[in-house]
Amino acid sequence: MSAKKYHVAVVGATGAVGQEILNTLDERNFPVKELRLLSSKRSAGKKITFRGQEITVQEAVPEAFEGIDFALFSAGGSVSKALAKEAVQRGAIVVDNTNAFRMDPEVPLVVPEVNPEALDQHKGIIANPNCSTIQMVVALKPLADRYGIERIIVSTYQAVSGAGWKAINELEEQTKAVMAGEEVQKNVLPVGKLDKHYQQAFNVIPQVDVAEENGFTLEEMKMVRETKKIFADDSIGVTATCVRVPVVRGHSESVYVELKSDYDLDEVRTLLNDAPGVVVQDAIEEQIYPMPLDASGRTEVFVGRLRRDLTHPRALNMWVVSDNLLKGAATNTVQIAETLIKRERS
Amino acid sequence: MSAKKYHVAVVGATGAVGQEILNTLDERNFPVKELRLLSSKRSAGKKITFRGQEITVQEAVPEAFEGIDFALFSAGGSVSKALAKEAVQRGAIVVDNTNAFRMDPEVPLVVPEVNPEALDQHKGIIANPNCSTIQMVVALKPLADRYGIERIIVSTYQAVSGAGWKAINELEEQTKAVMAGEEVQKNVLPVGKLDKHYQQAFNVIPQVDVAEENGFTLEEMKMVRETKKIFADDSIGVTATCVRVPVVRGHSESVYVELKSDYDLDEVRTLLNDAPGVVVQDAIEEQIYPMPLDASGRTEVFVGRLRRDLTHPRALNMWVVSDNLLKGAATNTVQIAETLIKRERS
Repeated sequence: MSAKKYHVAVVGATGAVGQEILNTLDERNFPVKELRLLSSKRSAGKKITFRGQEITVQEAVPEAFEGIDFALFSAGGSVSKALAKEAVQRGAIVVDNTNAFRMDPEVPLVVPEVNPEALDQHKGIIANPNCSTIQMVVALKPLADRYGIERIIVSTYQAVSGAGWKAINELEEQTKAVMAGEEVQKNVLPVGKLDKHYQQAFNVIPQVDVAEENGFTLEEMKMVRETKKIFADDSIGVTATCVRVPVVRGHSESVYVELKSDYDLDEVRTLLNDAPGVVVQDAIEEQIYPMPLDASGRTEVFVGRLRRDLTHPRALNMWVVSDNLLKGAATNTVQIAETLIKRERS
Repeated sequence: MSAKKYHVAVVGATGAVGQEILNTLDERNFPVKELRLLSSKRSAGKKITFRGQEITVQEAVPEAFEGIDFALFSAGGSVSKALAKEAVQRGAIVVDNTNAFRMDPEVPLVVPEVNPEALDQHKGIIANPNCSTIQMVVALKPLADRYGIERIIVSTYQAVSGAGWKAINELEEQTKAVMAGEEVQKNVLPVGKLDKHYQQAFNVIPQVDVAEENGFTLEEMKMVRETKKIFADDSIGVTATCVRVPVVRGHSESVYVELKSDYDLDEVRTLLNDAPGVVVQDAIEEQIYPMPLDASGRTEVFVGRLRRDLTHPRALNMWVVSDNLLKGAATNTVQIAETLIKRERS
């Protein structure tokens, strides 16, 4: 083991994902020499304890990246656009957890279990995919390798934490109001910056992120574009329907996948069982299947409801669940940094 | 208008669907001469007010159907199996809202907007389809007529009321317990009679009804088999993934449909707009789409998120929402009786 330790900056340290990045750095024993916590001007001055040490949050300005080895960005696309290149210019490697650079051809989009080799092409910035994409491609990777993937049709059941603290608090407040028979306040979901807000408590909202011109939402198109990029295969067809459900943590996905060659269902289970980062929970007859409440706080991707499609001989149906704040965000971000260190050494 | 009025029995009058059948008979001005309320021995003796008149619930025994014209059953499959034929023998027409006879080749399975002609073949019993099937076929009917349907891949987001009062109460109690930080009781969902029960509050459960041997659940296979029967076309492929979400009322469905011929998206909107029982809510750019909270208490099927599939030239994606207790159950049941009256007269 190398004894080398790193200067790490976390941008957006006070956010829902930022806090999980701190927990993850700690739990995975990431070799931190110095941890610099950066945020908007508004949150600067807050104090956060990491490994027993109190750290004062500083404003994220270009100079704050001096001497940083890894800058982990999770403060929204505009912050990444403004500061990621500043960090790189100062010698940092940026792992960006926003949509700012994901489709930039110069920027690798990486899930360590799926395409770690893409890291070798980085020019300072590495993008962390969207949470919904990450868990799906981890589950599909062993199938892509063994059978090849023709196309994917996915419907999501996404937790509110994907929209940050405000959305988590809103679901809680709305639930309290409904239970008390009081008026429900609607200010955040489905998309904070849009005009209309709807009740999420005891409701399902078929919109995650803004609309694109083709009638799909940005979240849906992220799943389409990012999946092709991560598998480095534009021929893979992807259609997504992204939906928010009243769950705090853990995204679920109903995935239909059409493979390029015929498959054996038992072999699929074995492949998934052996795949890194995947836990198979697949026994409907014993009521065993993944659920977001069980996946919450775990770093793996859980797969179940495996069954042969009834309408296409080479198609498979599966149910994929993971903690959107962990493997969908913080865990994958830290894993990217870990994988970079490993690949540099090897 | 005929002045004829009918002797109507409601079996399972105290259940979640039974109560909605009473409301529906009233709201639709069904020509009721006499309303007989029947239930299990346990609920017999309860009093229910209908059109200002207090009616005492009687035990559902064979003799209770003497003189009845329409017997509307919604008390579980075993009650229907035991009593539907007794009612028919006594001259009643049975509209059965359970799974007991749906796949019986002698029994028409009817959604009045889709296959009213099937009613003409009835031999005393008419089956009301499963809630998830009804709303899907209403939305697909105009597309089936115009383009033909090759296959369907559907993922559902089902409300707990589909599992009755106990499930509604359980979601409420569980939600209260979570909000109070107390221990959550789990006794009903996902399937009361099975061994394991899971928390539904703030959770998603990918099981509705018991498992079948092929790895699908009974609810999923109901959607498969009933869709083929209602469209009278075994060549239609259907694959379903049925999932329960923490919503009280209103099922949502993410539907992928592959048509037999090419289609025009604007024409699809027009066809759906003109279809009986369908309301189009389709403008993602203005954040207009169906949601269960809006559909709750309404009798129509709401359709939105209409968009051309990205992976198949003849496929379409849509989002279909309806109140599972109304169009999914009570409304369709009463509509069947209304349609029988109309067709007899014409």
